[in-house]
Amino acid sequence: MNIAVFGTGTVGNTIGSKLIELGHKVMMGSRTASNEKAQAFVTKHMGKASSGTFENAAAFGEIIFNCTSGLGSIEALQLAGESNLNGKIIIDIANPLDFSKGMPPSLSPVNTNSLGEEIQKTFPSTKVVKALNTMWCGLMVNPAMINAADHSTFISGDDADAKRKVKEILQSFSWLEKNILDLGDITTARGTEMYLPLWLRIYGATKNGAFNIKIVS
Amino acid sequence: MNIAVFGTGTVGNTIGSKLIELGHKVMMGSRTASNEKAQAFVTKHMGKASSGTFENAAAFGEIIFNCTSGLGSIEALQLAGESNLNGKIIIDIANPLDFSKGMPPSLSPVNTNSLGEEIQKTFPSTKVVKALNTMWCGLMVNPAMINAADHSTFISGDDADAKRKVKEILQSFSWLEKNILDLGDITTARGTEMYLPLWLRIYGATKNGAFNIKIVS
Repeated sequence: MNIAVFGTGTVGNTIGSKLIELGHKVMMGSRTASNEKAQAFVTKHMGKASSGTFENAAAFGEIIFNCTSGLGSIEALQLAGESNLNGKIIIDIANPLDFSKGMPPSLSPVNTNSLGEEIQKTFPSTKVVKALNTMWCGLMVNPAMINAADHSTFISGDDADAKRKVKEILQSFSWLEKNILDLGDITTARGTEMYLPLWLRIYGATKNGAFNIKIVS
Repeated sequence: MNIAVFGTGTVGNTIGSKLIELGHKVMMGSRTASNEKAQAFVTKHMGKASSGTFENAAAFGEIIFNCTSGLGSIEALQLAGESNLNGKIIIDIANPLDFSKGMPPSLSPVNTNSLGEEIQKTFPSTKVVKALNTMWCGLMVNPAMINAADHSTFISGDDADAKRKVKEILQSFSWLEKNILDLGDITTARGTEMYLPLWLRIYGATKNGAFNIKIVS
């Protein structure tokens, strides 16, 4: 599949590299066509990756992975242009962490809204699926790194077909079907985004980011 | 030990009954001395439980368990009177869930503050420890109900001695020491309180409240 990865940071690199390993073609999108980190990604995956503006990448991708920092995600998608996004699945793995008021970061939006919802409202013709935003990116693409891949991940979104597609992608990342919990519509993204403050405190207490939660009952 | 349980709902009943089973003496506090649910609790635990106003209960208890609904907790503690609280440990297991804007509830305070912090700021001479607020009350006092008691719980607070004491109480509830994670000072209560929206969505998706999360790494 042709997939756009928005964002050139560690998360975008990790997701993009995994998608290429799985045989997809990836275009990494950023603010400028000449982004150095995007060019390094292309060099690393010669022949299987390309880079360009958010607009170029969105036009290229059948699916868009939003790996930008949460506070800049709406702007990045606006730069992509609505016509390049319409009808497509946006897999939103970003968290709207606001570091401007010091550490630990707060969330914006929060509580009665979420980034996932905000993207869906801003681009009503897309199919937003919130996923993978509750862990360190190394685990997103390699859940077997801990506990024999037996831990939990969540999806939120309004479109059942889009969620089915995202579930398939997660399974291709080695997530076990039984551990992918569909929380419901896109408003449930509030739940997974608001888990981040707990994630940050667990990380702070254990000094180990390679952890996840497993629902037990 | 003499312990005050603030709140006459399911949570207060569950915590109070467990404390009595463990040999403690419990006074259940509420707004009025004649609260019917408190009187039923006393009748159920004849000779080991008493009831009274928040003021009576706070004066009685060496430790106060805050099991009131989160939006009313500060007022309940104010009714108890600062002089009855000073120097004592308040185990705050409440969540500031605001149902006034419809379902699902939002949190108030949230994001840059928490109920745990607000109680600590309002009563600076107490030692507030946030604990047990991340699960259904049946599991709080009976973790072995699921997964052989192997799942996670958290404590937050500024006072190391108070946290040690609360950890002992949790262990007396059959929590395994390895599963009690000290997140740090009372500001970390933001993390556990902000987990509630995810808890609610998991409950909504699975229709089973007898679950918890286990940190795996």
